[in-house]
Amino acid sequence: MKPPAPPAPTLPRGAGEGAPSQPEKSVLPGSPSPAPRGRGVGGGGPLVPRLEEQGYTAEDIAARRRWIEEKTGAGLTHLGAFTLTGERMRGNIENPIGAAQVPVGVAGPLLVQGEHAQGTFYVPLATTEGALVRSYERGAVAITRAGGATVRLYADENRVAPVFIFDGVAEAAEFVRRLPEWFDAIRAEAESTTRHGRLLRLEPHPLGRDVMVHFVYATGDAHGMNMIVRATDRACEWLVAHTSARRFLIFSGLEGEKRASGSLLAGGKGKKVVAGVRLPARVVKAYLHATPEQMADVWRHTVLGHLQSGTLGYNGHYANGLTALFIACGQDVANVANSAVGVTSFEVVEGGDLYATATLPSLTVATVGGGTGLGTARECLEMLGCVGAGKAPKLAEIATALVLAGDLSMAGAIASGEFVQAHEEYGRNRPAPHPETHRDEETGS
Amino acid sequence: MKPPAPPAPTLPRGAGEGAPSQPEKSVLPGSPSPAPRGRGVGGGGPLVPRLEEQGYTAEDIAARRRWIEEKTGAGLTHLGAFTLTGERMRGNIENPIGAAQVPVGVAGPLLVQGEHAQGTFYVPLATTEGALVRSYERGAVAITRAGGATVRLYADENRVAPVFIFDGVAEAAEFVRRLPEWFDAIRAEAESTTRHGRLLRLEPHPLGRDVMVHFVYATGDAHGMNMIVRATDRACEWLVAHTSARRFLIFSGLEGEKRASGSLLAGGKGKKVVAGVRLPARVVKAYLHATPEQMADVWRHTVLGHLQSGTLGYNGHYANGLTALFIACGQDVANVANSAVGVTSFEVVEGGDLYATATLPSLTVATVGGGTGLGTARECLEMLGCVGAGKAPKLAEIATALVLAGDLSMAGAIASGEFVQAHEEYGRNRPAPHPETHRDEETGS
Amino acid sequence: MKPPAPPAPTLPRGAGEGAPSQPEKSVLPGSPSPAPRGRGVGGGGPLVPRLEEQGYTAEDIAARRRWIEEKTGAGLTHLGAFTLTGERMRGNIENPIGAAQVPVGVAGPLLVQGEHAQGTFYVPLATTEGALVRSYERGAVAITRAGGATVRLYADENRVAPVFIFDGVAEAAEFVRRLPEWFDAIRAEAESTTRHGRLLRLEPHPLGRDVMVHFVYATGDAHGMNMIVRATDRACEWLVAHTSARRFLIFSGLEGEKRASGSLLAGGKGKKVVAGVRLPARVVKAYLHATPEQMADVWRHTVLGHLQSGTLGYNGHYANGLTALFIACGQDVANVANSAVGVTSFEVVEGGDLYATATLPSLTVATVGGGTGLGTARECLEMLGCVGAGKAPKLAEIATALVLAGDLSMAGAIASGEFVQAHEEYGRNRPAPHPETHRDEETGS
Amino acid sequence: MKPPAPPAPTLPRGAGEGAPSQPEKSVLPGSPSPAPRGRGVGGGGPLVPRLEEQGYTAEDIAARRRWIEEKTGAGLTHLGAFTLTGERMRGNIENPIGAAQVPVGVAGPLLVQGEHAQGTFYVPLATTEGALVRSYERGAVAITRAGGATVRLYADENRVAPVFIFDGVAEAAEFVRRLPEWFDAIRAEAESTTRHGRLLRLEPHPLGRDVMVHFVYATGDAHGMNMIVRATDRACEWLVAHTSARRFLIFSGLEGEKRASGSLLAGGKGKKVVAGVRLPARVVKAYLHATPEQMADVWRHTVLGHLQSGTLGYNGHYANGLTALFIACGQDVANVANSAVGVTSFEVVEGGDLYATATLPSLTVATVGGGTGLGTARECLEMLGCVGAGKAPKLAEIATALVLAGDLSMAGAIASGEFVQAHEEYGRNRPAPHPETHRDEETGS
Repeated sequence: MKPPAPPAPTLPRGAGEGAPSQPEKSVLPGSPSPAPRGRGVGGGGPLVPRLEEQGYTAEDIAARRRWIEEKTGAGLTHLGAFTLTGERMRGNIENPIGAAQVPVGVAGPLLVQGEHAQGTFYVPLATTEGALVRSYERGAVAITRAGGATVRLYADENRVAPVFIFDGVAEAAEFVRRLPEWFDAIRAEAESTTRHGRLLRLEPHPLGRDVMVHFVYATGDAHGMNMIVRATDRACEWLVAHTSARRFLIFSGLEGEKRASGSLLAGGKGKKVVAGVRLPARVVKAYLHATPEQMADVWRHTVLGHLQSGTLGYNGHYANGLTALFIACGQDVANVANSAVGVTSFEVVEGGDLYATATLPSLTVATVGGGTGLGTARECLEMLGCVGAGKAPKLAEIATALVLAGDLSMAGAIASGEFVQAHEEYGRNRPAPHPETHRDEETGS
Repeated sequence: MKPPAPPAPTLPRGAGEGAPSQPEKSVLPGSPSPAPRGRGVGGGGPLVPRLEEQGYTAEDIAARRRWIEEKTGAGLTHLGAFTLTGERMRGNIENPIGAAQVPVGVAGPLLVQGEHAQGTFYVPLATTEGALVRSYERGAVAITRAGGATVRLYADENRVAPVFIFDGVAEAAEFVRRLPEWFDAIRAEAESTTRHGRLLRLEPHPLGRDVMVHFVYATGDAHGMNMIVRATDRACEWLVAHTSARRFLIFSGLEGEKRASGSLLAGGKGKKVVAGVRLPARVVKAYLHATPEQMADVWRHTVLGHLQSGTLGYNGHYANGLTALFIACGQDVANVANSAVGVTSFEVVEGGDLYATATLPSLTVATVGGGTGLGTARECLEMLGCVGAGKAPKLAEIATALVLAGDLSMAGAIASGEFVQAHEEYGRNRPAPHPETHRDEETGS
Repeated sequence: MKPPAPPAPTLPRGAGEGAPSQPEKSVLPGSPSPAPRGRGVGGGGPLVPRLEEQGYTAEDIAARRRWIEEKTGAGLTHLGAFTLTGERMRGNIENPIGAAQVPVGVAGPLLVQGEHAQGTFYVPLATTEGALVRSYERGAVAITRAGGATVRLYADENRVAPVFIFDGVAEAAEFVRRLPEWFDAIRAEAESTTRHGRLLRLEPHPLGRDVMVHFVYATGDAHGMNMIVRATDRACEWLVAHTSARRFLIFSGLEGEKRASGSLLAGGKGKKVVAGVRLPARVVKAYLHATPEQMADVWRHTVLGHLQSGTLGYNGHYANGLTALFIACGQDVANVANSAVGVTSFEVVEGGDLYATATLPSLTVATVGGGTGLGTARECLEMLGCVGAGKAPKLAEIATALVLAGDLSMAGAIASGEFVQAHEEYGRNRPAPHPETHRDEETGS
Repeated sequence: MKPPAPPAPTLPRGAGEGAPSQPEKSVLPGSPSPAPRGRGVGGGGPLVPRLEEQGYTAEDIAARRRWIEEKTGAGLTHLGAFTLTGERMRGNIENPIGAAQVPVGVAGPLLVQGEHAQGTFYVPLATTEGALVRSYERGAVAITRAGGATVRLYADENRVAPVFIFDGVAEAAEFVRRLPEWFDAIRAEAESTTRHGRLLRLEPHPLGRDVMVHFVYATGDAHGMNMIVRATDRACEWLVAHTSARRFLIFSGLEGEKRASGSLLAGGKGKKVVAGVRLPARVVKAYLHATPEQMADVWRHTVLGHLQSGTLGYNGHYANGLTALFIACGQDVANVANSAVGVTSFEVVEGGDLYATATLPSLTVATVGGGTGLGTARECLEMLGCVGAGKAPKLAEIATALVLAGDLSMAGAIASGEFVQAHEEYGRNRPAPHPETHRDEETGS
């Protein structure tokens, strides 16, 4: 459930200047303000107390929080008011001091006609961006009133891309040519480390004397990065031992994990999902306040803006909906960096209807592992009927219908010229100024 | 404080089939399970109850939550256990049902030698990705022991890019040529709508008979999208009234808001910030378990992977650190899509030291408005001394030093081959299996 | 041998206003200045005379040239001094008036250790850019003195990517899932139109309700676009007749023909070739006037520039060498747009040597068809031992070694600071000012 | 007139193994087959004879050609049949052996309504790609019959982007902040080396501890790279002497010269030009065999393909037209790599007309210097009325109208389904098989 990011989880031991020799022992539970330790080469301040067993008891978390309060002068009352049990956080966070609270609203009804998700959903969205929930709600209702979004899942896999380094171009080429011979052995090594991951295929990408290889796995309903990194590492060691590869690095940058890469558009990283809906003109007009022709006009002109700015793909604001859904549902939110690369399309079709689609080539969602079992996350997954094994494809289909809703709503607001006016009117219609507008004038937000 | 995303916040009124005619009135407070309404063209399910005044009282939030529980069968206990007051959420969320809890850990000490941020920081990170906090902590300590990260803020602005549509290429060209003449009038119009935003300049980008124009503003310490969208909308109306522009769309897609665009690398969207640190070889060895040459070797080979995959920029995992910081500090998390585009550089310099840098051309952070004032967010900002007006540049400098820490730690883990081994050893050294490893075997995560 | 570009080769017949009803007949051979015809909607001038049989005899070409001389006032003596026979041009040009002359120099010796190209080559380069041949010569000699460039050809294929349009997302998904069933029938249709092309595989890329499909072929030693477009068109008609595809467009833009696309980096369009050479430090110093460390330093810093500018891949100036080689050898020169996307790598390796590589993922070269048989082109191919069937892989290997030479030379000039100085000194050492410098002062070039 | 490519034009002197000590003297004119010299580290073959004064007399060129004939076994009759004088080639080519001949056809009439180009043009295109001239001719006639293409030139500049390297991030930031102070001194240094180039502005792009700076110049009617590289080199030396910049490299890769970079879309490299035409439906039908709606449909679907493949910009086949024009007119053909990045737009407008545009943000054309004065190139420029000073903007406008013609024709062929059929019919209507089709069957082309 970890991305390529997670590095060595230990601080240096006995590393000379600055490194604490026994970090776990030196700070006892209940010792909220340890004497500054670890000042070294450049000084700078003490390490965060490690506490016994890394400190996941309620007392340890409170002690650490008080230590931070003392160090920084901040009062951390809200952070301490969480309902997760501390031990439950182990494996999800280190140096815990509490939990952030992010407001959750619901957008729906969203009618999804997928193969895994079928029915009406009320989608939990965690955000602090005013109007976001209203916007997605509007699009969701439009889709629903038009009969729902058809969604199809094309691919469901994950990958790691180590790089192998050779003496020269000839050795690299030889390696690539012989790679298929070794597939069975590689798979056996890789799968020896996991009960759930299956190695599907290898895709070599030679570049100079380097050969990057996509190790592509099925990972079930988990995000699975930890699992497949471990499996791939084992396989890489086998390859270095048995081939002319001199050495390897477990990540090459090719994998596209948590980054916006052009290669994501071709799929292979996460789930590829497409959602589409045919909206009668009257539904477009009633809910989006525009005509299908105006919607297509917005698409056409804003595609030019995407082309002009060298954007990967085209979409209105996938990142908004995915981020809010991911925070609510305990996903690895940083995966929005790859998941939000995709393409929206609007087209006027026969009969004057609008056919709108959203294509997500690299959606990364999970229903087991990671943060999916934690308190509020699990509840939000329950709202969608997406708890546990077998539910990740369902979550993927809902997510794709969701971003389609968001882009419909946004295009409608642009087409109708209501984007700003709606905010203004919203405020004017109410006896007191809209609080958001008000705050803006006070603070500049 | 809204991105380009937020569209019209109102549902259609009197829109014929399907649209509720009086949504606010029809569901009274305390009426948790309204009869399904609004079934229309395609059926699909009732609207979420609007309740009086949009329903931000504690009772209304609870009523809405119960309505969702009934509709979906989920139990939402944790979601209801929030400490924010409901009214405080107004302007940040609609249809609220509670709050998501995301575990927060701290990474530090992080010594920053900026112009706005100076001193040692303990950075709050909200995530469920195990090992992430440890990783950033490790990099932060390395930076700190080396004397801290030097950080410089180059630019601090935000922009909207409407598109103006003309009869033809000649009219578009005439408009671009005359645009400077109208600058004063445009600025007057734009600034008439805001007390905080200042229009700095206009940058026209003609494409065919369209002309997209970057309206570039100083927005103070707020994110400011709402503010500058309103201001720009006013100016656009003036231009359509006074020039040959036939019409405009308030967004063209050129702005790069919440999207990964190549044009972000040139700056102009948010804050451009650079952090650098010179690490003695012994610090690299002690904390990152690698030599400077190995770090440069990782950079060199993984740059090839970024080039091979058509990635925008190069970095190890900016998205991880920024996402965790943004959730903790009440930022608009979807802005990670643009903020995480950037470039890390490692270089062995005279004396065998490692010079490492992180460049963020499009960092979007705020210390006023948006979610920055909400309970836990405000506390996290307090931990960094970044509450309120005048603090956004400081937060930007800390954020940039943070991602530098993360990329140092990750590269060290790749270089040393400890990326996987560390996880394994971590588990083995403990009497009971590491819970994360354990869970993996159970669930496939 | 035609790229996606070539459209319908006929002018409209009987098309009402403006279109000549009998274009071929109305202008007889020897009739150099026909009365203006075809003035229509907007006027504008007569059509170019078509002449009998499209006018490829020497007399017809001369007549057409005189017609242009008269129309434009230009004297076209040099254009008329060609040695190709007119009939030989048929299929390569329409409305011929003569031939352009481009100076050809030779760069070599270039020692290539490929699988298809083995030995020393003197490479013909057609260019008017002073110093280009010297630059490539210098790199070629450095490679040669270091023992030659090792080159490997990884893939050799070409593709067309039509798009199929469906009623909706569900139909598109069904099509993608069933596509493998139809492969044999599709291949039979496609290959019924050609004796040389073989359909290797289909790669579907669904996007919304569209499905783009790469039809990937082996095309032997020909460029083969004409061949595979015709084959694919036939197969598309079969698919529209037998599946739920409503219609198709023969090009979708996905193919990457004559365009710089990120997807080219993954291969599939043309030949993927890698060249590498290990240069002892003394060779680097003697020929490139730099140390291996300086070469790596140039690579490192200019990679940052490529990342900053959103460049596809990284290289010094592949376009220079490929363009000059393509013009000389009768290649389709516009294919430089895709062929020049690639990645150069420099690395200091054990012993202080420099390992340098060039990777061309999408090189498009041919040795039969197109312009390869025309006078000077055929002679240039003869110089390389690359005439006719079976030689395209050899030409590809030479081309890749060539661009490696060019990038070595350029980096050496940047590293040593000689880029400008060399030009200056070049001039000063000669009794009269260097003509190029001189001309610059006169004309501003 | 040289691109970033051209490095040091001299071979190493006295460089130990392999380097000839007196290259110019050792091979006398008329000595066609010198004894192999210069075998060194890896052997590989003799250098190309340098001859006296670099060997530009007719005799020297012939002698060198004979030397190549002997070395390679090729007969180079056509290459020797050129009409350029050898001395005229000096500064354009080294090691000359003759000239390549590329067939030239004419496409027109093309009616251009620009500010620099006004009237009807017959455009010379040098290519060996059959049907290319017909295709551009068809589009040109359609534009002409619709009243001509409106063209506007927005910017006309060129740039070099050296990189300055500093001790650290703080020094780099200080440099960027103070750069404006030094502008006058920098300009004085730069302009001291040239009579024609004017330094317009500096645009710094800091990245880590590097600062890349666009030096943007007006270069008159010349390509000007040689000129502005020399000027910039002088200014860089001044900066290193007077600021904290430790050193510089004259190219950073940021400049986008002869490369496809996303940053080109924002302009700054060469000329930015836009062409547009409004085509009545009957003209579209008569000449392009499609309806405006079909043209817009092709645009819409193929834009999706461009997005899917990560293409920079969108266009049908700009590279085809530009390459053919550049070869004919003595341009630096490798600049097609940057010039062909651009965006085509088709839109159905009021009254059912088609509004079509082509936008070239980075067009690099010249009418003085480089190869523009050579025999056939000068004649082709004469055909367009574009010889000499003051004519580069005119050539740019014609080039942009030309690529618009090409994209109209191509889209028409795709829309009408005639792309393939036209080729087939073309052949069938003629008594003998079309030679191109015939050749295809023989050779696989």
